[in-house]
Amino acid sequence: MAAKSKILILGGTGYIGKFIVKASAEAGHPTFVLVRESTVSHPEKSKLIDTFKSSGVTLLYGDLNDHESLVKAVKEVDVVISTLGGQQIDDQLKLIAAIKEAGNIKRFLPSEFGLDVDRHNAVEPVTSFLAKKVKIRRAIEAEGIPYSYVCSNAFAGYFLPTLGQQNVTAPPRDKVVILGDGNVQAVYVLEEDVGTYTIKAVDDPRTLNKTLYLRPPANVLTFNQLVSLWEAKIKTTLEKVYIPEDQLLNYIQESPFPANLQLALGHSILVKGDCTNFEIDPYFGLEGSKLYPEVKYTTVDNYLNAFV
Amino acid sequence: MAAKSKILILGGTGYIGKFIVKASAEAGHPTFVLVRESTVSHPEKSKLIDTFKSSGVTLLYGDLNDHESLVKAVKEVDVVISTLGGQQIDDQLKLIAAIKEAGNIKRFLPSEFGLDVDRHNAVEPVTSFLAKKVKIRRAIEAEGIPYSYVCSNAFAGYFLPTLGQQNVTAPPRDKVVILGDGNVQAVYVLEEDVGTYTIKAVDDPRTLNKTLYLRPPANVLTFNQLVSLWEAKIKTTLEKVYIPEDQLLNYIQESPFPANLQLALGHSILVKGDCTNFEIDPYFGLEGSKLYPEVKYTTVDNYLNAFV
Repeated sequence: MAAKSKILILGGTGYIGKFIVKASAEAGHPTFVLVRESTVSHPEKSKLIDTFKSSGVTLLYGDLNDHESLVKAVKEVDVVISTLGGQQIDDQLKLIAAIKEAGNIKRFLPSEFGLDVDRHNAVEPVTSFLAKKVKIRRAIEAEGIPYSYVCSNAFAGYFLPTLGQQNVTAPPRDKVVILGDGNVQAVYVLEEDVGTYTIKAVDDPRTLNKTLYLRPPANVLTFNQLVSLWEAKIKTTLEKVYIPEDQLLNYIQESPFPANLQLALGHSILVKGDCTNFEIDPYFGLEGSKLYPEVKYTTVDNYLNAFV
Repeated sequence: MAAKSKILILGGTGYIGKFIVKASAEAGHPTFVLVRESTVSHPEKSKLIDTFKSSGVTLLYGDLNDHESLVKAVKEVDVVISTLGGQQIDDQLKLIAAIKEAGNIKRFLPSEFGLDVDRHNAVEPVTSFLAKKVKIRRAIEAEGIPYSYVCSNAFAGYFLPTLGQQNVTAPPRDKVVILGDGNVQAVYVLEEDVGTYTIKAVDDPRTLNKTLYLRPPANVLTFNQLVSLWEAKIKTTLEKVYIPEDQLLNYIQESPFPANLQLALGHSILVKGDCTNFEIDPYFGLEGSKLYPEVKYTTVDNYLNAFV
């Protein structure tokens, strides 16, 4: 059996990055995280960085704006995973240039971890946001860099603890706001599982130049099913406030950035069904829970028990 | 008296842009809006564009990525106002290049209309977001383009109808979530008034190469004052749920983009007091309601009456 590939993660201290770093280290990959020197002393990041170190992760110092540092870091590894944040999507062009120059990368995973940016029915400003990720995909393909795109759909650990009700700290016990009619299927995947599936894919020849979709069957649910699941657990019927699509589109129009982006993501996922409204054709993609049936993913049903 | 300057607005169909366009036309400025040809037929924009036309606004077709079209549009006018959205801040470098080449612009107002990006205590990801606006400021100054920066603070028409409680459609009548201790002053300015003050400033020599801050005295309020005002109107005492700063910082860390951006803006405005926590020194700025006492701005008190 071949040695585990060496993995470099950019954005490793970010929201989803930390789960990818953890999964990589736990799977036995020599794991490297690129950080700026200022990040190490950052009050909210230093604890996380200590956790990385104690898991055997190697910190590499560098900066997206320092091409030499990037090339040097990239040359240390076999696989590069970017989990850079939503405001740094464009910056990945610099990373692509470094990967191109280094010439040794067997697989690059750009910052995706959401919807399929080539297959959606979102409205502005999400359209422009996803177009930035599309531009990165096309740049990777144009350079001939081996890639995998991970479409992990909605983050369970962010969405489920409040059932998508913003500004509340626990799932609702009296009233729930439902975008659209609540009959559209979305997919909720726990962040730890996103990490596990992603790391499984990096050395898998089946996912080379393909998109890995995460649609674990137990976690493909309509919003109404999600609410029913929660109502059964708390033995209460919630008041349901439905927001019709035209009203939601109006809210999006009448909200400043970034509230409009948040609302328009809800529109895409919960009204347009962009997590599930297309078939995964083996020509372009594969589904994670089918590829890796050995992964015991966390079900929405189980996850919600923690909040009863 | 000199003729009113000709004004070109980019992002004129956006959230704050439409109010600037309206104020410009109403004040008698020959008003031009740059639009892409695709925008005119956009279902949610076409009605707005019809309103513009009936107000005497001239549409100019162009695109940020088409340098020649930009230069041509800029050459038609005296003043350029950018109200481009939060994902297009960087794109203003292209606009700056066009203004530089055209060489005729007497005043440029970049897309600001929020906090003073040079004076804040925000955390990530707001820091990186505001840094993009800082970069645009420095580019304008380096090119020697005459400018005004408008720091209009919080949008009343977005924030007040729900008292900042996301995912609700009216101000709360039972419970209100308060970030921090609620004793920090913020500033709420109605979007129409942002338009009025902005247009007053464009031909005003006092605001040349200065920042215009909007802090209309009746609208400088702590969150607790805002809640009290609302409670008095509805003759009800609300349940108050305070989110301490460390808990809020943790939520920001544990939220994906763009929810983290939204929460971190709340932290900056409502916990750190970034609308009000510095003196406006005439060396760099002026306050709008002092400069233009003739403007009868909408007070928060009056505005909330519509929701009782």
